[in-house]
Amino acid sequence: MGPQVVVTRRAHFNAAHRIYNPAWSDAENARVFGPCANPNAHGHNYNLDVSVSGDVDPATGYVIDINVLKRVIEERVLSRLDHRNLNLDVPDFAHTIPTAENIVVWCWRQLAPAMPRGRLCRLVLWETERNLVEYAGG
Amino acid sequence: MGPQVVVTRRAHFNAAHRIYNPAWSDAENARVFGPCANPNAHGHNYNLDVSVSGDVDPATGYVIDINVLKRVIEERVLSRLDHRNLNLDVPDFAHTIPTAENIVVWCWRQLAPAMPRGRLCRLVLWETERNLVEYAGG
Amino acid sequence: MGPQVVVTRRAHFNAAHRIYNPAWSDAENARVFGPCANPNAHGHNYNLDVSVSGDVDPATGYVIDINVLKRVIEERVLSRLDHRNLNLDVPDFAHTIPTAENIVVWCWRQLAPAMPRGRLCRLVLWETERNLVEYAGG
Amino acid sequence: MGPQVVVTRRAHFNAAHRIYNPAWSDAENARVFGPCANPNAHGHNYNLDVSVSGDVDPATGYVIDINVLKRVIEERVLSRLDHRNLNLDVPDFAHTIPTAENIVVWCWRQLAPAMPRGRLCRLVLWETERNLVEYAGG
Amino acid sequence: MGPQVVVTRRAHFNAAHRIYNPAWSDAENARVFGPCANPNAHGHNYNLDVSVSGDVDPATGYVIDINVLKRVIEERVLSRLDHRNLNLDVPDFAHTIPTAENIVVWCWRQLAPAMPRGRLCRLVLWETERNLVEYAGG
Amino acid sequence: MGPQVVVTRRAHFNAAHRIYNPAWSDAENARVFGPCANPNAHGHNYNLDVSVSGDVDPATGYVIDINVLKRVIEERVLSRLDHRNLNLDVPDFAHTIPTAENIVVWCWRQLAPAMPRGRLCRLVLWETERNLVEYAGG
Repeated sequence: MGPQVVVTRRAHFNAAHRIYNPAWSDAENARVFGPCANPNAHGHNYNLDVSVSGDVDPATGYVIDINVLKRVIEERVLSRLDHRNLNLDVPDFAHTIPTAENIVVWCWRQLAPAMPRGRLCRLVLWETERNLVEYAGG
Repeated sequence: MGPQVVVTRRAHFNAAHRIYNPAWSDAENARVFGPCANPNAHGHNYNLDVSVSGDVDPATGYVIDINVLKRVIEERVLSRLDHRNLNLDVPDFAHTIPTAENIVVWCWRQLAPAMPRGRLCRLVLWETERNLVEYAGG
Repeated sequence: MGPQVVVTRRAHFNAAHRIYNPAWSDAENARVFGPCANPNAHGHNYNLDVSVSGDVDPATGYVIDINVLKRVIEERVLSRLDHRNLNLDVPDFAHTIPTAENIVVWCWRQLAPAMPRGRLCRLVLWETERNLVEYAGG
Repeated sequence: MGPQVVVTRRAHFNAAHRIYNPAWSDAENARVFGPCANPNAHGHNYNLDVSVSGDVDPATGYVIDINVLKRVIEERVLSRLDHRNLNLDVPDFAHTIPTAENIVVWCWRQLAPAMPRGRLCRLVLWETERNLVEYAGG
Repeated sequence: MGPQVVVTRRAHFNAAHRIYNPAWSDAENARVFGPCANPNAHGHNYNLDVSVSGDVDPATGYVIDINVLKRVIEERVLSRLDHRNLNLDVPDFAHTIPTAENIVVWCWRQLAPAMPRGRLCRLVLWETERNLVEYAGG
Repeated sequence: MGPQVVVTRRAHFNAAHRIYNPAWSDAENARVFGPCANPNAHGHNYNLDVSVSGDVDPATGYVIDINVLKRVIEERVLSRLDHRNLNLDVPDFAHTIPTAENIVVWCWRQLAPAMPRGRLCRLVLWETERNLVEYAGG
């Protein structure tokens, strides 16, 4: 088996969300989550770095064709999160708080089974230029 | 009068918005605005570059103390837009569509009269890393 | 007439080019242009910032719909420059050296007559993260 | 006369400085300048964007050869500011406070008379990713 | 135990430093460290990426509240390094050369014992946009 | 043995390439590689992040002197790839498709045996701001 290389594609989407635990009072939500609990939602430009690991196909020189990877991300993630209110428009976040941590694990579950070549090895989700989360499937 | 220098401070805020014209049908909104018209809002990380022009105070070497400028931006803009739904939480956008164009003009009206030294000469509002608007008060 | 706002869209394309004056000897080309004159071409990731100025349409809140602007840039510029060798694949650069200066003026001539709303007011072409050119039609 | 194009080169240097007015008491300096007045200096990575305007030479396709521009910036600015303490190592800042405003005007005076082609039309000095100043010679 | 996610917060500080080994002659320091050994110091804008690993709290959706993490970084690192001369103002660097390598290890020792939830798993310290160091506690 | 720190230097180069498998028909190349197979090549600004791991030399505070690392990258990689057509000017890519995957493995083979201190532990090659590959020698 030849060299194992990691290929990363950066995708992006814009979404609104609210950080709020319905089991708590509004006062408790405000104390813990501050302005992130505002009832009418706020939003972010998210960047999602999707990394796929594998050997290099000698016929193409690719671990995975980056255009194929783009299409998988588009179908599995962007088409469901982009320009949405995560709490209200994405059923999986109706009862799960859409923090960056929970979003990145959700993205993993959509993407990991869908790789046509190589295997998903890391996701990085940027919520702002200074706040990011990373998940490697463990 | 000595050299005229421009000082710029980059501020940022996160907000949700919906691009929607209430005078139109939902179908017309969807046709013109696409996913930006989604009822439950989406959102962005906005960067706002605030530029102030003036002569350099010989006692301080400053056109304007950048910490003073930060406080003005905080009081006049960030405290009212950050972590908000622009359509629902900011009265001035109840009847004005919160496009980047309209937001940047609104920011100008808040900031221009509030400069303690120099004069506001340019605002740049980044809605994403690739879409931005600029206003110079004309 | 209401506020005049500038809207900017950043586009990008990848291309190969060679900086070479056919009226000169190879030695003279090497002396003036250095490795940029290498016969087999080198290349860049170009970013092109397209700025359009105008009043804000009260019905949409837009100077120009950014998706319309994207399509104009795609049709007029990207479809002809992206993934090309500028010297060999673009007839207008068969006898004009494809420096950043000449490329940005060429882009202006494609884009200025094609704006469906507002007017083209500035182009910035980034050849690298540290070298860029700017043209305002003068 | 053909199209007027602006060429920009981004240079960078690292320097220490102290913001301090010797005509004032230490208490007054601390009140006005805060931690920027710390006696032992602090420092920055500065980026300097140097813009030169002119017509495009038909023989080269250049307003100015960017390698020539780099050398001028190196000789006139970087060789005197990079890896220095601006207050202690640069005689011109012995009696002028090395704020970004004063540094950018100083850079203009070094660079404007030294352009071998075109004319210096704008300097932008980044003190941090969020604080910058701009000077156009007025 | 649920998914293990890494949360990263980017902090920044400005500082002056001098790279100099007092056991060596000035000539030897100049030979090894070049302009970094200049007696009056130079400086940098540092970015520090602090990464914390752990499981996701089901009540908050957080590995660690990013505002809590910000406060820990502020108290343990920024309040002691920001706007300082590292050699002269920080006792721990009186006898340790404040290279990026030594600074990042020092930051680890301040931060690792102070995490209220999860565990510190990686620090990245950017000295410039092109020079960085990374430490994972080994 | 003291703390193990990773030092990273970002280098960059500009190159042209063509993604094309000579064992296939032109139609098959166009189907698989799309515009990347254009006969006259296209190009990129590549960034290469070179990471070296090791203990910190107590005499210098360095894992490796970053200026020494720069020279090794310059001699072993940049002098052979910068401002070149990878397919035509670099003999090793005469029969190996110069995809990012194959380039990064090639860089590893040039750099790994040449480290004067520490050991090469990771390479990241950015082909665009959104497409990158990573290799750790496995």
